[in-house]
Amino acid sequence: MDYFSKDIGNLIGGFSSLPGIGEKTAQRLAFYILSRPESEAKHLAEVIVRARENVKYCKECFTLTDREVCPICSNSKRNHKLIMVVESSRDLAAYEKTGEYDGVYHVLHGAISPMQGIGPEDIRLKELMARLAGSEVEEVIIATNSSLEGETTAMYISRLLKPIGTKCTRIASGVPVGGDLEYIDEVTLLRALEGRREL
Amino acid sequence: MDYFSKDIGNLIGGFSSLPGIGEKTAQRLAFYILSRPESEAKHLAEVIVRARENVKYCKECFTLTDREVCPICSNSKRNHKLIMVVESSRDLAAYEKTGEYDGVYHVLHGAISPMQGIGPEDIRLKELMARLAGSEVEEVIIATNSSLEGETTAMYISRLLKPIGTKCTRIASGVPVGGDLEYIDEVTLLRALEGRREL
Repeated sequence: MDYFSKDIGNLIGGFSSLPGIGEKTAQRLAFYILSRPESEAKHLAEVIVRARENVKYCKECFTLTDREVCPICSNSKRNHKLIMVVESSRDLAAYEKTGEYDGVYHVLHGAISPMQGIGPEDIRLKELMARLAGSEVEEVIIATNSSLEGETTAMYISRLLKPIGTKCTRIASGVPVGGDLEYIDEVTLLRALEGRREL
Repeated sequence: MDYFSKDIGNLIGGFSSLPGIGEKTAQRLAFYILSRPESEAKHLAEVIVRARENVKYCKECFTLTDREVCPICSNSKRNHKLIMVVESSRDLAAYEKTGEYDGVYHVLHGAISPMQGIGPEDIRLKELMARLAGSEVEEVIIATNSSLEGETTAMYISRLLKPIGTKCTRIASGVPVGGDLEYIDEVTLLRALEGRREL
C-alpha cells in the first residue's frame, strides 16, 4: 500500500484487521473517516477505548456490561427463577429484542467443540453450576445454537442438571416463521416433524 | 438498545454510523473489539485519530496524504508531464495498483452533478487549471468514472482544455477483461464497438 501515505495505510490496516472487513471495505471506511469532521473521528476512537476499558463480565450472568451486575440481573421485576443459557451476549440481545422473555440469562461465552479443542471447562459452565447450587431456580432453558456444538453443549448441560433435579428445557427447533418448506434442509424438516404439536 | 450497557451501545452506534455498516455488522465488530486485548482497541483508536489529524491534501495533486507533497508528486522518476485526472484518492490507488502508469495525478474530489447540486466550482478544477497554466504538461488523461457524472466532468474538462491546447485524452470504455458479452449492458457494448481497434 505504498501509494497511500503511512497514516492512511495504518488506518486501512486497522479497519481490515476487523472480522469481515476486507481491503476494499477498509479503504472505503478509511476515506469516509478522512472526509468527516475531526470531532467525529475522535468520537469513534473514544467509544472504542472507553468500551474496551470499562466493559467487563456481569458477576451473575457473565454477559458483557459496564457495571458490576448487568441491568437485566439487577432488575428485580424479572423472574430470577428462570435462567436462559446462551452462547454469547449477542444471542442474549437477540432474545431481549423479542421483548417477551422476562427471566434472566447465563452467557457461556462459547460452546463445547472437540474439533476446536473447546471443552466444558473452557466455557462458563462451572459458573452456571455454582449459580444453581442452593438457589431457587425453577427452570433452565438451554438456548445454545442449533449447530453441532450448540447441541453438544445442550446435551452436556442437561446431563449436568439431571442429578440436581432442576427442570431443564431446550428451545424448539423447526421451520422458521416465513420459511418455505421447499428450501429447508432435511434435518430441520425432521426436527419440525418430531416436535409437532396438537392444535 | 437498552439490553446492552451504555458503553457497548455507544460502540455499536459508533460503528453503525460508518457507511455500509448496519446494526448487525456493528454488533459483530463491537463484540470483536471487546474480545480482543485492550492494546488492540487502543491501536485502532489511535490510527483513527492520527490519520484524521495528520492527513491533508497534497499541495500539487490534492490527493490525501500526510506530507506537504504526496510521495507520487515528489517522486522525480515519474513523468510530471502526464497528468491523470481522477475523481477520488481511491481511484488513484486503483490505477497505482496496476503498477504501469508512471505519470502523476490530479484528484478532483468529486464529479460535476447537477442532480446533487455539485458544480464545476465544487471540485478541484480551478486547481487543475492553475496547475496547467504555464507548465510543461503534455497530456491530460481524464479517468473519471464511466457514470453520467464522470462523463459530464470529462466533457467539461476537455472543453476547458481546448483553448490551452494541451492534449486531452479519455480512458477507453468497453467490455471489461473477462467480461461475458451476454451479461453486458447495451451502452457498454456500443461503446466497445465504437472504440474498436485494428488488430
